[in-house]
Amino acid sequence: MPQKVRIALDAMGGDIGASVVIPGAVISLNRHPDTEFLLYGDRTLIEAQLAAHPAMKAVSRVVHTDVAVAMHDKPSQALRRGRKTSSMWLAIDAVKKGEADVAVSAGNTGALMAMARFNLRTLPGIDRPAIAGVWPTMRGDSVVLDLGATIGGDAHHLMALAIMGSAMARVLFGLERPTVGLLNIGVEEIKGGEEIREAAELLRAMDLPQLEFIGFVEGDGIGKGAADVIVSEGFSGNIALKAAEGTARQFAQYLRGAMSRTLLSRIGYLFARGAFKALRDKMDPRKSNGGVFLGLNGIVVKSHGGTDAEGFAYAVDVGYEMVRYDLLTKINQTLNRHGHTTLASASAVQEALS
Amino acid sequence: MPQKVRIALDAMGGDIGASVVIPGAVISLNRHPDTEFLLYGDRTLIEAQLAAHPAMKAVSRVVHTDVAVAMHDKPSQALRRGRKTSSMWLAIDAVKKGEADVAVSAGNTGALMAMARFNLRTLPGIDRPAIAGVWPTMRGDSVVLDLGATIGGDAHHLMALAIMGSAMARVLFGLERPTVGLLNIGVEEIKGGEEIREAAELLRAMDLPQLEFIGFVEGDGIGKGAADVIVSEGFSGNIALKAAEGTARQFAQYLRGAMSRTLLSRIGYLFARGAFKALRDKMDPRKSNGGVFLGLNGIVVKSHGGTDAEGFAYAVDVGYEMVRYDLLTKINQTLNRHGHTTLASASAVQEALS
Repeated sequence: MPQKVRIALDAMGGDIGASVVIPGAVISLNRHPDTEFLLYGDRTLIEAQLAAHPAMKAVSRVVHTDVAVAMHDKPSQALRRGRKTSSMWLAIDAVKKGEADVAVSAGNTGALMAMARFNLRTLPGIDRPAIAGVWPTMRGDSVVLDLGATIGGDAHHLMALAIMGSAMARVLFGLERPTVGLLNIGVEEIKGGEEIREAAELLRAMDLPQLEFIGFVEGDGIGKGAADVIVSEGFSGNIALKAAEGTARQFAQYLRGAMSRTLLSRIGYLFARGAFKALRDKMDPRKSNGGVFLGLNGIVVKSHGGTDAEGFAYAVDVGYEMVRYDLLTKINQTLNRHGHTTLASASAVQEALS
Repeated sequence: MPQKVRIALDAMGGDIGASVVIPGAVISLNRHPDTEFLLYGDRTLIEAQLAAHPAMKAVSRVVHTDVAVAMHDKPSQALRRGRKTSSMWLAIDAVKKGEADVAVSAGNTGALMAMARFNLRTLPGIDRPAIAGVWPTMRGDSVVLDLGATIGGDAHHLMALAIMGSAMARVLFGLERPTVGLLNIGVEEIKGGEEIREAAELLRAMDLPQLEFIGFVEGDGIGKGAADVIVSEGFSGNIALKAAEGTARQFAQYLRGAMSRTLLSRIGYLFARGAFKALRDKMDPRKSNGGVFLGLNGIVVKSHGGTDAEGFAYAVDVGYEMVRYDLLTKINQTLNRHGHTTLASASAVQEALS
């Protein structure tokens, strides 16, 4: 058995806090017994939860703090009030100090990203971080990034996203050379802004061994599973994610409405309730919980703030897998191939192309 | 009875052409008998269709041309080959010459926009056109724009989109003062790029009588019906639309799969088939067919290329309503309030704010 995976949890994060975080971690621990936890937050609340879960208690260390970042705190407020003291900061700081391999928080995204960036700093060659998530598609899961960390960006930024996203797909899906597509408003070469067309040229010209660039993918290509990794700057990536979530909710509401409309449809529902359960499982947003912050010197996973223990467990699972299958090593290998960074050699290719 | 609405149809547009376009127009004519048609394309094909529809034939004039823009033609190719001769060009040109009130085509979007822009030119005060569509939401329909005509744009461009989109919502939904939201990656004031925050300040400061600005709307707010009009530059707008379409298709496929999985679920399906029919109706993408080109000296409506007659009829309906309820007058009224353009006075407001 290799070393245990050490996970730092912001026990105060999310709409509920410890009573979701601890039971969620317990579920994940059952799936991955080679885990141990550092729990940051109010000791009384945390220990009340641990009392009900002795197996979890046995692999956890509690670090008390009174300070918690609120869900509505602006990033600047959170940094001012919660730096060095809040449960969120301390969880990230455990990664910085090498006491934990990954931090997981259901706290507010802006604050978490600000603290992670401030404390962990970006990787050499990476200017701006990204958030990557798993998107269920018609042919399995895809990694989609950036889901909203960074607005805009040039061809190099998109190239960095492609490299980091493909490393994550190698970790999560066990693929040797994941396919990568650039999100665009058409698949023809002339479509999209200059930075996207440049990024496409670069990815094609460099032909990296760690990823297979397949060209542009439109918004409806994500759900089709057109590529293992879909790359976009953070504004459009976030809009795509939220628009898809909104449509899924809309569809679910219509379906509920339709099935309860008449006596016949209610009878039909009873017969088919196994099918509806399978459908609910397939569409369950909790299974895609866990946004991974990429581009930092350390791994931080963001859980939805409103999720339950089952959902939080999926975010902890994501953190576990990123560590167990060496996300950071895989990213750095691609960035630093042959002793100079891939992105620097991308500049040379770009000059040669122009 | 007021004057008839004169609709120019590109009878060769779309994957199928005349055998979808003419039967589609017939369906719309039944709903709006105060319509007459100009039909551009291959006379033999068109007249074969008209022979089956005498009521349509009675209100149609056929203008023959051999030239048709292909679905895969690039905009530049289409302009080179099809200017002054193609069925697409001639339909637009009928609007330019005042022989028709609106042109409808299921031909390729890039070519249609290039020709419309080249021939009709943009409205005074509008630099770049937009495509607007109707988006079914949980509380009725919303107008969403830009769905992909123009990538990027400054605060003035977003303001112009807000004005044009709200004019379209007044036409379609009969609202006095539609609510308008700016698509963004968060609802807080600090979110999004500079141009979006500036546009929000402008819209708030100007407080136009024709629209009620409600602030930022996230991607999942569109489906919730957060505003009557959702404004975005064309890249993100297109990504939102396609991501939502992809998710709807994915959900429909999952549902079909689930309902045919077991004997019980198939029995359930039989009982509930009325409910499923209602659901299909509600999700029917044909009902949202018809993208309106805004910002030009004339109205052009783009139908999906792959739709059937029922779907094409909805695009013709949209064209009819834009004319009948005076879209262009409503846009121009807002743009030219008090004898100087609203957008010019927006500049003054902007200076005062900064």
